[in-house]
Amino acid sequence: MVIGAGNLATHLALALHRKGVNVIQILNRSRLAGEKLARRVKAGYHADFSAADFKADLFLLAVSDTAIEDVAKSLGLKDQLLVHTSGSVDMAVLSKASSNIGVFYPLQTFSKNKRINFGSIPLCIEANTHENEEKLLQLAKLISKKTRVLDSPQRKVLHMTAVFAGNFSNFMYTIAEDLLKKHGIPFSLLKPLILQTAAAARHEDVFSGQTGPAIRGDARIMDEHLEMLAKHGVYMEIYDLISKSIIKHKNRND
Amino acid sequence: MVIGAGNLATHLALALHRKGVNVIQILNRSRLAGEKLARRVKAGYHADFSAADFKADLFLLAVSDTAIEDVAKSLGLKDQLLVHTSGSVDMAVLSKASSNIGVFYPLQTFSKNKRINFGSIPLCIEANTHENEEKLLQLAKLISKKTRVLDSPQRKVLHMTAVFAGNFSNFMYTIAEDLLKKHGIPFSLLKPLILQTAAAARHEDVFSGQTGPAIRGDARIMDEHLEMLAKHGVYMEIYDLISKSIIKHKNRND
Repeated sequence: MVIGAGNLATHLALALHRKGVNVIQILNRSRLAGEKLARRVKAGYHADFSAADFKADLFLLAVSDTAIEDVAKSLGLKDQLLVHTSGSVDMAVLSKASSNIGVFYPLQTFSKNKRINFGSIPLCIEANTHENEEKLLQLAKLISKKTRVLDSPQRKVLHMTAVFAGNFSNFMYTIAEDLLKKHGIPFSLLKPLILQTAAAARHEDVFSGQTGPAIRGDARIMDEHLEMLAKHGVYMEIYDLISKSIIKHKNRND
Repeated sequence: MVIGAGNLATHLALALHRKGVNVIQILNRSRLAGEKLARRVKAGYHADFSAADFKADLFLLAVSDTAIEDVAKSLGLKDQLLVHTSGSVDMAVLSKASSNIGVFYPLQTFSKNKRINFGSIPLCIEANTHENEEKLLQLAKLISKKTRVLDSPQRKVLHMTAVFAGNFSNFMYTIAEDLLKKHGIPFSLLKPLILQTAAAARHEDVFSGQTGPAIRGDARIMDEHLEMLAKHGVYMEIYDLISKSIIKHKNRND
């Protein structure tokens, strides 16, 4: 049973279906997306949440963060296992909707078009009982090689750090691309550096791989860069703040 | 002829040597590193820059930015082709040292221990004559599949953008690792996201792949994250500034 038919719902339903899990129902308010996903995983479809089939072993809520609590209640469950899939929402928001609850959170950004290899995507699990945790872990291991039990506060920290490691890195690439474009230089020149930097990031050892003017304390280059960025106020601010933070971090670690 | 025996000098000399280029001399003030590199590429070694063998086709200066001008002059050249390897130094600093000058800049971070596959590292070329440019391009193409002619201002922009795309991304990973460690969560959970984000960065299209609370305008999550970061002043500042910049960038592009 999958509730939702957005990016995450689609990728999860397909991944489970491919591993032989019987997805019996897709519930989704919007008929077009719901029916399409239901066809792909050979499930029934209902627009009405109160039509949920209570025989399902698991109710997987893949809806937006703000909708989780209301949708959960509208299912009318009692003790059926109900999980949400959000990194930033407490498991406890489900507690009024069922007595067996949990979280099934895949740490990745999903876009509709890209085929996702779930095998390498970490799945973070939480549950209100050991038995539920075991059930969710077994399901998680079917589709992912990286599973991990995290409680709600830990999951929120992980979600926040993903903003730094994923979203903010991507914005660093964006700034680089933007500045290069203004000077007629192809962004492709930076691709090997970007890939190598990402590949080199190792557990417990990321800052030891830090290079560049800030970690070298090369004030001449930093000043030159800030001057070049004077026309781009926000980029200059970002350059300045991150450079100072790198220097501070270095001094703290020395 | 390679002047220097640091990371870049070592990787360049080895890459050229492997491609059959005859590296005839290594000049380096520090004997230990200089002799070691000279042995590896079967070259002569001198500590004294004035002992440069003028028969060399190319004098490749791989020394620190601030040493380039002085070392160049101390070679006592007239019209021998002399290049430096820095991203942030103007070609013109060589003009007093020879009448044939250029730049041979590999866009990558080099650490001593890692074996470097030069083939995928972009080599940016500049020269004061078309003939010199051709010579340098031919040499560059021997060791790299990505060569590009850039003038000094363009090279400086590229070097600056590499700070954003490489150094600053690495610091975003560092912040993530630091926060995860404080909560007993393994950094390895973020590795697939980091690699996927880097791999997804495509020319002319990086910002279209931007995800996360800022681009969604999800103020609830951003506030929650800022609150979680309240104990980590600098990280909070960085989160706030980059999030605001993403929102600004989005509005500009809309």
